[in-house]
Formats: sequence, structure tokens, C-alpha cells
Amino acid sequence: MNVSMNDPYASRTDRTSAIIARRDPVVYKDGTYADALASEQVASYERDGFLLLENIFSDEEVQGLLAEVKRMGTDPDIIKLEEAITEPGSDAVRSIFRVHELSQLLGRLACDPRLIHVARQLLGSEVYMHQSRANMKPGFKGKEFYWHSDFETWHIEDGMPAMRALSCSVLLTDNSACNGPLMLVPGSHQQFISCQGITPDNHYKKSLKKQEYGVPDTLSLQLLAEQGGIQAMTGKAGSVVFFDCNTMHGSNGNISPWPRANVFMVYNSMENTLEPPKYGLVPRPEHIATRKRFTPLLPLEEAATA
Amino acid sequence: MNVSMNDPYASRTDRTSAIIARRDPVVYKDGTYADALASEQVASYERDGFLLLENIFSDEEVQGLLAEVKRMGTDPDIIKLEEAITEPGSDAVRSIFRVHELSQLLGRLACDPRLIHVARQLLGSEVYMHQSRANMKPGFKGKEFYWHSDFETWHIEDGMPAMRALSCSVLLTDNSACNGPLMLVPGSHQQFISCQGITPDNHYKKSLKKQEYGVPDTLSLQLLAEQGGIQAMTGKAGSVVFFDCNTMHGSNGNISPWPRANVFMVYNSMENTLEPPKYGLVPRPEHIATRKRFTPLLPLEEAATA
Repeated sequence: MNVSMNDPYASRTDRTSAIIARRDPVVYKDGTYADALASEQVASYERDGFLLLENIFSDEEVQGLLAEVKRMGTDPDIIKLEEAITEPGSDAVRSIFRVHELSQLLGRLACDPRLIHVARQLLGSEVYMHQSRANMKPGFKGKEFYWHSDFETWHIEDGMPAMRALSCSVLLTDNSACNGPLMLVPGSHQQFISCQGITPDNHYKKSLKKQEYGVPDTLSLQLLAEQGGIQAMTGKAGSVVFFDCNTMHGSNGNISPWPRANVFMVYNSMENTLEPPKYGLVPRPEHIATRKRFTPLLPLEEAATA
Repeated sequence: MNVSMNDPYASRTDRTSAIIARRDPVVYKDGTYADALASEQVASYERDGFLLLENIFSDEEVQGLLAEVKRMGTDPDIIKLEEAITEPGSDAVRSIFRVHELSQLLGRLACDPRLIHVARQLLGSEVYMHQSRANMKPGFKGKEFYWHSDFETWHIEDGMPAMRALSCSVLLTDNSACNGPLMLVPGSHQQFISCQGITPDNHYKKSLKKQEYGVPDTLSLQLLAEQGGIQAMTGKAGSVVFFDCNTMHGSNGNISPWPRANVFMVYNSMENTLEPPKYGLVPRPEHIATRKRFTPLLPLEEAATA
């Protein structure tokens, strides 16, 4: 297990948990690669590790996107795919992966100038889609999702070399204190939490439902939360959250009657394409982590819904 | 099972779920029995079924109460009692019952003029303690508590005749969107949701950990929430929530590192003391529902912490 000793972001080795300072920039090329965000917004993202932009998509656009996600969630041809993930102990579809390829509308959304230029600006390069999915946390029985850094998983299980990717969550329902909103720990992106435990093969099949490996220790979480607090991304449908690949996040359950839906897209820099997974792990399937074709996304000239 | 056909609040019979209009007042004797609340506050409670009062207890008082609750939660002599309830799948103490008798300080809190006069005013009579408990929803692994009306349980399992009781929750930690705050459905106290399913004996042992009977159906819940919305009782430590015995409430889990602690007291009117449970059920133990001695609580002249 000592193959990784030169890896600044080693995790799940035989050593204990550790907090390691980030080695990579948060904003690349000083945020000059595109001009979607104002400099204060870039600075805010760099400091906190996330940026909430409200009222990006109109009510009409949200309705169109939500209808598409709902349609997909009940489409028998989609439900039967490996891309469709159900809630633990339930038949309700929780997530559908690779939506930017399964849906023409969501494929266009991925290239919408309001999203992709933010990604290009912050990552300082052309970008491709590492992973996309639609999430539907059902009402009444939506389960929690425990704290994690996406980068920890992407680095170990997918072989993503550096912290040069970001996630973007387009809220398709209002997110309030009541329906289990995304929670982020401001500033946590500056620390890498190396996790304990060895990863079994085909871990991804379970981890998409419930994380058991790559789980940060409570002492580190406590420290991060005491330093930065926790911010719940409450906002109206049509808002967009961008967050760095290493920002610690999670969400509580949802017993409210209201489902929580969003489209989630991970842009990775074309200069940060995947290498083999760590520790000889078998690569996760293509719909979880793009590996076969790193194709830069071509920005649309106008809104995806136009 | 037809013994209850004359009971306006029949529930858990062989009939289907139903929404039944409340027969009882919300505020008794026009709120003139005491004068702790202003008339607008009484009107607000009557309309919504709850009232959040902020900054009732000082930081110093909160620290004293919290220290007492923490002490009790680790006191071996208390942990071994039937009064102490642990989290499902964990040793962490989630609730301690009968705290107004187990702790001198909390016994005085029950008679604090800032609490008891509100109860006396709204219920229009002298009051006694139907149930008291300290709740500690631990950080990281605090479980959700699904929607329920307390009165449904108290009526069926404890034989409480009418809706003339209220709960009071003294927040001992800040409650935010992030740590699973109490959620209430405004206006829901005006409807009684009759639940499906028969209650087994000694149900209470499990129901305190996870409710399986007396669970409202999702259609009724949806209706109540569409009508009234859902309000999360977020507020600083030292705030107090008063809510009617029939107000629908619940809480999501808590993955934040911060525990959520409160002291919870149920005041029942001396004119509403318990009868035998419904359907020949065995009465729940004294620490869950006071039955042996209905002793009116004597208001203190000054703050419990004085």
C-alpha cells in the first residue's frame, strides 16, 4: 500500500486519518479564461469553495427542465439502465447518471453559457463532463447523504490527478430548511481529508446509495465546521450552486412532502483528465466517470432552452 | 373495535385514514386566565398552532440548563433508568424522560413564570406535567423523527380526553437549517388525522425510537402541508417554542457536528386529566404519561435559575 507515498492526496491507505493542505489553485489562470463572473464573485468562490447564484434560470426554464427530469424518472427504458439509482429500501428513483447524453435538453444545458463559461473561467481551460446526473430526493423518505469531498473519491477511485474540477447544481425545486438542502462547509476546500480504510472492488455500486469508504473522520469534520461553519444552500428553483471538487458537503434527510430535485454536472479541466485509479482499483463504469473519451464541451451561443 | 364510534378523535381503528375537524378550542377562556402573552401572540398561537418566542432565556441560563442536561446524559445512575432512551443503533442518549422530577433545576424550570404562565393562559386553567424530557439529538448521526400529532398518541395510548394540552420546547442549542430543527405545519392543529393500523401492547418501547403506529398517511400530510406550508423552528439557544398538542410536527436527521438539545415539557390542563387508554391498551409507564398523581404545578415567583 506504499505506492502512494508521493501522492499529496493519498487516502484510504494503511495510515491514519490526516488533514493535508491543498496543493492546487482553486481558481486557475486568475479567472481570466472567460468572463462569466465578476471579480468579487471569483474571489468569493476562491475563499469559500462555492458560489450560490440566484435566479439564473427562469420559472419557465425550470418547469421545462423539471418536466424532463420527471419524465426520465418514470421512463421504463431509463429506469432499467445501470444509470438509474433507487433510494435504499425503496423503488423511487433517486438519481439518473449520464443525463447529458441520455437527454437532448440536458445535453444542451451542459453547454449553456450560464454554466459552462463559469466552469471555463474558474478552471482556466476548456472543460469536459466528468459526470452528470439528475437527483430527485423524494418527499417523506429522502435519505441523508453523509459528509464527503467528491475529489477524495474521484482521485482514489477514478484517478483524477488534481483539484481542477467543479460541480454545478441547478436547483429545480425550492430548497428550504425543510427539505434537506445541500450543506457546504466554507473553506473546507483548502484542506484535503485523507480517509481511513481500504476500498473494496466495485465499491461504487454501494457507495452511490450509502458511502462506507472515503468517509471523513468526525474529528476532522468537527474542525472544518468549527473553522468555517456550515451553509445550507437554500434558494429558489432556478438558482445554481457551483462548488469546488474538494469542498466538504452533505445533506440531511427529507421528511417533507416536497421532493428536492436538481441537475448536477461535474466539469473537469481538459488539462486534468483521468489516469488509472489508485491501488489497482478497477475503473468505475463510464456513466459514473468519463474515461474513454475526453471531449471538450462546446459552449452554446444562447440559452439551452432557447 | 367499534367501542370508539362516539369518539370524535377515533384513530387506529379498522376504518381507513381520515381528516376530522377539531372539536375543541385552541385557546381556552379567551386567553384571560393569565397574562404572560399579548393578545396578538395569543391570536398567532390560535391561528398557527404554535408560537416561537426568541431570547427568553439568557446565555447564562442556557449554559446552566445545558450543563445540567449533559451531566444527566452521562450520569450512570440516570443512563441505567428506563427514563433514558438511546439512538437507534447507537449508545448515545437521545432522550431522558421525567426530567422535572429527576433534576431539581429542571423541576424549577417547569414552574418558571416565563413558561408556566403561558401554559396557564392558553389552556385556561391550572396545569400539571403530562410528560417532560430532555432531548439530545447528537451530531453526525441524529436520526429523523417522522411527522406526528402528539395528541393522537396521547388520546389513544394515554387516554387524554380533549385537545387541551401544549408542549413547550426550550432550545438549549442554536437551531439552524443544518441541525435538524423542529418542523411544524401551521394550521394543522385544526384537523385531526385519524391513522390506520392497530396498536400492539407495549408499543411505546419501540415508538420512542421509531414510530410505526399512529403514523399519518402521506395524502393527509401532503394536504396539510400544501395548505399551511412547513415552518422550521430555527432560532438561537434560549428561544422557546410553544405548540398545541395536535400540531403536526417532525424533524429531519442531523449530520452536522452540532448536537441539538432542548428541554421539552408537556403541560396538560387540570380539567383534562387522563382516562383509561383506548381499546383496552395497557397504560404506558408513569414516566411517559403521568397518571397516578395529577398535581397542579405551582408557579415560581421568579426565574427558575434565580
